[in-house]
Amino acid sequence: MRKLFVIGIGAGDPDQVTMQAVKAMRQAEAFFLIGKGDEKRELVQVRTTILAEYVDTPHRIIEIADPPRERTPADYTGVVVDWHERRSELLEAAFDQVDGVGAILVWGDPALYDSTLRMVENVLARGRTSFDYEVIPGVTSIAALAARHRQVLHRIGEPVHVTTGRKLREEGLRDGSTVVMLDGECSFTQVPGDDLHIWWGAYLGMPDETLIAGRLREVEARIVARRASLRAEKGWIMDVYLLR
Amino acid sequence: MRKLFVIGIGAGDPDQVTMQAVKAMRQAEAFFLIGKGDEKRELVQVRTTILAEYVDTPHRIIEIADPPRERTPADYTGVVVDWHERRSELLEAAFDQVDGVGAILVWGDPALYDSTLRMVENVLARGRTSFDYEVIPGVTSIAALAARHRQVLHRIGEPVHVTTGRKLREEGLRDGSTVVMLDGECSFTQVPGDDLHIWWGAYLGMPDETLIAGRLREVEARIVARRASLRAEKGWIMDVYLLR
Repeated sequence: MRKLFVIGIGAGDPDQVTMQAVKAMRQAEAFFLIGKGDEKRELVQVRTTILAEYVDTPHRIIEIADPPRERTPADYTGVVVDWHERRSELLEAAFDQVDGVGAILVWGDPALYDSTLRMVENVLARGRTSFDYEVIPGVTSIAALAARHRQVLHRIGEPVHVTTGRKLREEGLRDGSTVVMLDGECSFTQVPGDDLHIWWGAYLGMPDETLIAGRLREVEARIVARRASLRAEKGWIMDVYLLR
Repeated sequence: MRKLFVIGIGAGDPDQVTMQAVKAMRQAEAFFLIGKGDEKRELVQVRTTILAEYVDTPHRIIEIADPPRERTPADYTGVVVDWHERRSELLEAAFDQVDGVGAILVWGDPALYDSTLRMVENVLARGRTSFDYEVIPGVTSIAALAARHRQVLHRIGEPVHVTTGRKLREEGLRDGSTVVMLDGECSFTQVPGDDLHIWWGAYLGMPDETLIAGRLREVEARIVARRASLRAEKGWIMDVYLLR
């Protein structure tokens, strides 16, 4: 492979793709789709829809099975690093099937809570293959959340803290505004305080988009219940929220 | 005015505009361009270029002069709030010139260190005019910075803190990764530590894009000098950096 594009495609709405992303996609002769098992087939489907809509140049799709991963391990970092290594091996084998330009489509933006860039660096670090690569930025699910709620993330002159559910439980809330991603456990219920507001969104930009906002103590039970029923119904969920 | 779109247009590269932004722009009959004085004429120019490239529907451009603003006041929040109020008055008068759909193009994403949404809410709060409005998310300068440096913003499972130069000087560095925006004073020189890295970028996605990365103590003087000369040459600068 001569060149790889790692392309942010936005939070889920095919219209959130940038012109830059479209131009990069049209240069690619092969797209690597990293599958996440049957329950996330819909996610692969959105990527396929994007290709069908924007790319009329000849291209191949190379699906890469995602290795299984322990979701709540004791040694979180160690398990994630090991999982990335197994993904790298599969990616390397897939990259070797392409001679010219390849591309990977990434949800949101490749720089935020996505492992693709680390995997690409891991593949290069193995030293068995080499290629140039370029990152195309995308609209993050954070920007999509804020847009749908018509909220500014920060207070005037104040910081925004972007963190995970795990870190929120460990460290509590900081001053300023906090955006929480990767929270499978509704950690907002464990944050004390009577004057907090939450702006929550799931499946942003997709047909099942669901938004709930309000005083945290008044709406938290509704978010927990809604999240559980949506997840049960669809088999997966992607959500993000702002706390302040 | 019946409806207003507040549209994120990305960090400066016209290709960073999303399809969603293009579709919204094509619905608008008037665009409000908030000027920032002669030294930022180039910024207005990029917006005009975007309109020329993507919008072939008939439209008007309504330029709104930006009221002057004290850059380093003692009462920072008070001065900013007052400045927003003066902008609201000018905006209200401009909105009244439009009957159907209007649009404001915003650098990066409207939810991050941009005052447009607060201005729109201020105009509505004055109660003299009413309209529906919708926010179209955009690629942030943070995502553009990370993409150009091919960096992931966060360490695995760790948070990302987005803050201002002022707050960085007041509060110092937090654990995890820190992104600094609105830093006219090169506050990174005041952060202690010998093992920090910086990834800095100015005019991201524009012809004068400049990137410097490395160990903070080794490259900080070069960034300060480069920033000063670029700013003197062009009359303005927009930059952002990641510290870790």
